Amino acid sequence: MKIALGELAAVADGKLEGDSAKFISSAAPFESAGPDDITFAAAAGFLKKINDSKAGAVIIPKKFECERTNIIRADHPQLSFARVLERFFPTKRKTYGPDAPNYIGKNVSLGHDVSLAPFVAVGDNVTIGNRVFLHAGVIIDDDVTIGNDVEIFPNVSILAGTRIGSRVVVQAGTVIGSDGFGFATDGKTYFKIPQTGFVQIDDDVEIGAGNTIDRAAFGRTWIQRGVKTDNLVHIAHNVTVGEDTVLVAQVGISGSVTIGRHVILAGQAGVAGHLEIGDNVIVGARGGVSKSVPSGHIVSGAPEMPHRNWLKVQRIIPRLPELKKKIENLEKRLDRVSKDV
Amino acid sequence: MKIALGELAAVADGKLEGDSAKFISSAAPFESAGPDDITFAAAAGFLKKINDSKAGAVIIPKKFECERTNIIRADHPQLSFARVLERFFPTKRKTYGPDAPNYIGKNVSLGHDVSLAPFVAVGDNVTIGNRVFLHAGVIIDDDVTIGNDVEIFPNVSILAGTRIGSRVVVQAGTVIGSDGFGFATDGKTYFKIPQTGFVQIDDDVEIGAGNTIDRAAFGRTWIQRGVKTDNLVHIAHNVTVGEDTVLVAQVGISGSVTIGRHVILAGQAGVAGHLEIGDNVIVGARGGVSKSVPSGHIVSGAPEMPHRNWLKVQRIIPRLPELKKKIENLEKRLDRVSKDV
Amino acid sequence: MKIALGELAAVADGKLEGDSAKFISSAAPFESAGPDDITFAAAAGFLKKINDSKAGAVIIPKKFECERTNIIRADHPQLSFARVLERFFPTKRKTYGPDAPNYIGKNVSLGHDVSLAPFVAVGDNVTIGNRVFLHAGVIIDDDVTIGNDVEIFPNVSILAGTRIGSRVVVQAGTVIGSDGFGFATDGKTYFKIPQTGFVQIDDDVEIGAGNTIDRAAFGRTWIQRGVKTDNLVHIAHNVTVGEDTVLVAQVGISGSVTIGRHVILAGQAGVAGHLEIGDNVIVGARGGVSKSVPSGHIVSGAPEMPHRNWLKVQRIIPRLPELKKKIENLEKRLDRVSKDV
Repeated sequence: MKIALGELAAVADGKLEGDSAKFISSAAPFESAGPDDITFAAAAGFLKKINDSKAGAVIIPKKFECERTNIIRADHPQLSFARVLERFFPTKRKTYGPDAPNYIGKNVSLGHDVSLAPFVAVGDNVTIGNRVFLHAGVIIDDDVTIGNDVEIFPNVSILAGTRIGSRVVVQAGTVIGSDGFGFATDGKTYFKIPQTGFVQIDDDVEIGAGNTIDRAAFGRTWIQRGVKTDNLVHIAHNVTVGEDTVLVAQVGISGSVTIGRHVILAGQAGVAGHLEIGDNVIVGARGGVSKSVPSGHIVSGAPEMPHRNWLKVQRIIPRLPELKKKIENLEKRLDRVSKDV
Repeated sequence: MKIALGELAAVADGKLEGDSAKFISSAAPFESAGPDDITFAAAAGFLKKINDSKAGAVIIPKKFECERTNIIRADHPQLSFARVLERFFPTKRKTYGPDAPNYIGKNVSLGHDVSLAPFVAVGDNVTIGNRVFLHAGVIIDDDVTIGNDVEIFPNVSILAGTRIGSRVVVQAGTVIGSDGFGFATDGKTYFKIPQTGFVQIDDDVEIGAGNTIDRAAFGRTWIQRGVKTDNLVHIAHNVTVGEDTVLVAQVGISGSVTIGRHVILAGQAGVAGHLEIGDNVIVGARGGVSKSVPSGHIVSGAPEMPHRNWLKVQRIIPRLPELKKKIENLEKRLDRVSKDV
Repeated sequence: MKIALGELAAVADGKLEGDSAKFISSAAPFESAGPDDITFAAAAGFLKKINDSKAGAVIIPKKFECERTNIIRADHPQLSFARVLERFFPTKRKTYGPDAPNYIGKNVSLGHDVSLAPFVAVGDNVTIGNRVFLHAGVIIDDDVTIGNDVEIFPNVSILAGTRIGSRVVVQAGTVIGSDGFGFATDGKTYFKIPQTGFVQIDDDVEIGAGNTIDRAAFGRTWIQRGVKTDNLVHIAHNVTVGEDTVLVAQVGISGSVTIGRHVILAGQAGVAGHLEIGDNVIVGARGGVSKSVPSGHIVSGAPEMPHRNWLKVQRIIPRLPELKKKIENLEKRLDRVSKDV
């Protein structure tokens, strides 16, 4: 695919300095981009090497001064590059003939340009929007609603009652709508508390591979607009995850937690039940959140503490043996001094 | 669905004070229950608000004194509520016509009222009991035995030789009977040790979504009666999990561990290989168990320590920078004092 | 199955002392092996009980002195035992008739003796080698290459462009080739960065159950020859895992990490993005690696520190309350001494 630089500048929502008629044939990372490739530079480390780059074109920050030509100035060079990449590598929506073995239940409404790969099962009373791509082995249970332009990768299970918005992506092997982990006990054995709610996933969400998102005991587990989850993330019943929040791989969120907007939970972090995490909170990798965290706070550690404090603590922990010796020395010295006095 | 309060009291195994002919139409959480709903109150926080509740009926502890009517007194209000919920939201066992595409191997024994959803594959020499519901995409390998009243959710893989009791629930995407992680080495490369055993799951077990339970190297990996696992739990080969034990989300159990009865492993905890965890043990969230734990102990931390001690330790860790300064001050003061002496 | 001891000695690549014509009917662990079983002893604890063993034959280290007969001396007794086990429990490659419902795309090349279980879907432009066994519900997307003697267990998803070598095993429910977790932001919302690369898995790799291995943003995520991963392991985009490296259950590797050869990451460990882990490194269970680790180092803790140091630190942490008291006592004593001086 060859695309003129002028068109790419428009795709990138940037300002071209250079030859708008020049053809670019692909997009590549900064360090490997060749004369036919477009790339981007945003980090200082790359920007200072920009004159050495053999790239055919480079997207750079608006105000960066440099002497090379065929540059596109943009507010957010990485974002512009993502858009250019999408132009070169558009999502493929494969179509299958009527020979693809599917199972469609009763009272199913399918939009136009829906792709149903082999061994897709769709239950009863399901509504699926336009340009939805269900990959092979996807199971859609009863009473599910799916919006437009949704892509669901192989072997995903969408359980009864789940509501999915538009432009949602679900990576392979994920489970949405499993029963919440709720049991009542007589002190001896456990008795299942029926999980009567559902999962709601709003527009523009991407759910990673191997996630498990439980339905609510009552009401909904709610993944709001723009949330992105990485792989093997667990979200328990009745959790709300606010808009544009990011959950990195292997994060676990306990039941009834409310997470605000623009939050980042780094890899392998966990949140205990019934807590509130405010807007713009950052929880460091492996952070174990045991109390609610107000908006804007950055915390790390398990249990969590302010990130700055944690940085100091982490420098001391490996030196604990040394500190212990110091204390013992102090005791000995003080013993001697006490005698002398 | 409308059910008379008298009948609900019987379902709840409780004693009604109020109008047994009054009709209730659903069950709801305490805070949102309206005049047609039944709810329950067990925690002090809810009990003290009981006179303000608009609920049509409330299940409460046997001896709690209150003035409202239409109450059901029960030994275990939450358990009673779970039973009432099940009455309002019974498990649906869907039936599929002969057009549902399945694959059934040789020498398969199916009980009565078995539901086989689309794209269920059953291997050879499999025995499945009565009223079993295999959701879409469930794979049952050869030589598997399944009891009565079992529900297995979509895309679950039950591998060869697995034995499953009655009233077992397996949530979606779970794997039971994968090979144990056993390799022999010549110091350079690893050579697979064939995993010749199987997984046995006893009655009344519920396995969460996205679990992985490995077959034994020899003999069995054994999940005993009444065990409940949350999502993304890993259970390695030759593990025994005792009756009525609870494994919360993202717990990992290494090979050949034996866990007693009524144990609770909180979220993201892990247990190292070949250990014994006694009965009634509690391991706190993210606990990393490195030694066997005797019955009745409560431990937290990684490596684990007595929970009470851990509570103290966790209060000190964020103050380590302060303690370090104190030590440095002590050293300076002692230097001065030593000079003076 | 009955096999003469002479033949088993050859399988074990060992030297028999005893009756080469004696028939052995199975292989069993040391503690339960009976007169018809072969077993092995390598650990000192087993070797000292060797004269009490009722096993029909025992594989032992080359130079161990003992008086019993029907022993096989071998360099690596466990490895020899694994080979003997494989002789007794060979991998079964089931064959399915033409009635097994599959879906095979266009331009697919299948080797000889390929087993396609029910509900296997194979996309377009796929090459599959000889003696490959795809279990039920396996989804192979477009443009995938698979070598010879590969076994892929149920409900595995192999996404577009994945390249798999020979003698590879993939346990059930695993996802290979999901999109990397890459998003660009304008400071408000996230925009997907198309993940244009693929996953390459070299010969003799075994991937556990419930793994998620992301495709590269550009180029490849690369799992090299002989790597073994346990269950629920997460490997992010552009990671390289070196030859004969072992990733234990629930390990998480962030994007663009390079891991050397013969590395062991113990259970629930994690590695932060863009780091390099050298050859022969060992990371202890739950280790959280925050900086690159040079070859040969053994680290533990989160953040990691030298393992020896961590052992000392872990002994001190439970005693922090005691240390704190010591410091307070020192302060009081010093106050008194200072007054006295």
